[in-house]
Amino acid sequence: MSVYKRLEELGVELGAMTAPAASYAPFVKHGNLLYLSGHLARRAGQIWKGRLGDDISTEVGQQAARAVAVDLVSTMHATIEDLDRVKKIVKLTAMVASAADFESQHIVANGASDFFAAVFQGIGPHARSAFGVARLPLGSCVEIELIVGFE
Amino acid sequence: MSVYKRLEELGVELGAMTAPAASYAPFVKHGNLLYLSGHLARRAGQIWKGRLGDDISTEVGQQAARAVAVDLVSTMHATIEDLDRVKKIVKLTAMVASAADFESQHIVANGASDFFAAVFQGIGPHARSAFGVARLPLGSCVEIELIVGFE
Amino acid sequence: MSVYKRLEELGVELGAMTAPAASYAPFVKHGNLLYLSGHLARRAGQIWKGRLGDDISTEVGQQAARAVAVDLVSTMHATIEDLDRVKKIVKLTAMVASAADFESQHIVANGASDFFAAVFQGIGPHARSAFGVARLPLGSCVEIELIVGFE
Repeated sequence: MSVYKRLEELGVELGAMTAPAASYAPFVKHGNLLYLSGHLARRAGQIWKGRLGDDISTEVGQQAARAVAVDLVSTMHATIEDLDRVKKIVKLTAMVASAADFESQHIVANGASDFFAAVFQGIGPHARSAFGVARLPLGSCVEIELIVGFE
Repeated sequence: MSVYKRLEELGVELGAMTAPAASYAPFVKHGNLLYLSGHLARRAGQIWKGRLGDDISTEVGQQAARAVAVDLVSTMHATIEDLDRVKKIVKLTAMVASAADFESQHIVANGASDFFAAVFQGIGPHARSAFGVARLPLGSCVEIELIVGFE
Repeated sequence: MSVYKRLEELGVELGAMTAPAASYAPFVKHGNLLYLSGHLARRAGQIWKGRLGDDISTEVGQQAARAVAVDLVSTMHATIEDLDRVKKIVKLTAMVASAADFESQHIVANGASDFFAAVFQGIGPHARSAFGVARLPLGSCVEIELIVGFE
């Protein structure tokens, strides 16, 4: 089944590619790898601010991670034009703004990982690291970068 | 000399591949690169909890980093089946749970780097980043991810 | 125009390759990718210590990030010997030592990104992540790692 069909079934609408917050590119292609820049969490077009273990619950953090994953797919779509050219989600890095005692960064990151598994099915499971950072640009609660194989 | 011979000489026994803590894969192959997910530190099968500069000393942190490196080699072995197929340790990223004034993340990371150098000898030295994070999943004191070239 | 000509115009002198702070390599080549280890910020040969939002301003952090970028180019030059062989700056990761309320890691990272854009022009813009970390090795205020495509 086409990736677009699955996005439709999940009720996901892709947005425009988010402009980077600074002087870099939202993606770079090298060979058949696509390096996607760290995408910040957004809600209704605004930065989704906060810190896990402080003013953001694990459940809301998961929703934020899923929102970042949707934006990453939007960037992929804008870049390679046909999401069915994706051959593998290779590597995901999830940076989670965390209070000193918050230990569930992996649960938060599942919001993105589960989404990629649902959308890209057999080629969705990826290598991953998740860790807690002091603070993210613009106060975003989550930032996710991605490496994707395509043809 | 074979990698297995060196592991034997070092008295290292490989374990089973550690199941990932969440919905992702322990590794992904892309071309002749192996991307290994961030592996958490474990001791006697339990998460090795703590924070450097707080309740974990630099020396103990090094031991934890070495334990992660052993687990990474176990995952490599489970994945490519023959460790002598490894052609290069390419890139190591060490995330060290750190108190605000702890500045020896590079010394901690040496626990892993020295192990790879000993086991993989001429092809063991790698590009590396090490940095201090607020907190890691499940309270692990160290998390390490790895990119490996193989044939 | 040659990369060396642009460096000259910018008044930038490349230094010797900085020796890594620990048991790893300053770079690793894999295929036509160059993985550069995380480089710490230095000023007059000493580690440029501090924390953004604490004892380092955003503007000074940008200068530190630019200094790291110069060191990264020095390492590239020492490695591939001819900077005109660089085909693409692929991915930059900026780790910024940050106080809990500092949210301008992306502005700090621009100190490096703008430099690469100026030196490598059309092939300089890169994928990027920037985030705030608890603390960096030796107390450095900024650490930057890089992936570069060359031929």
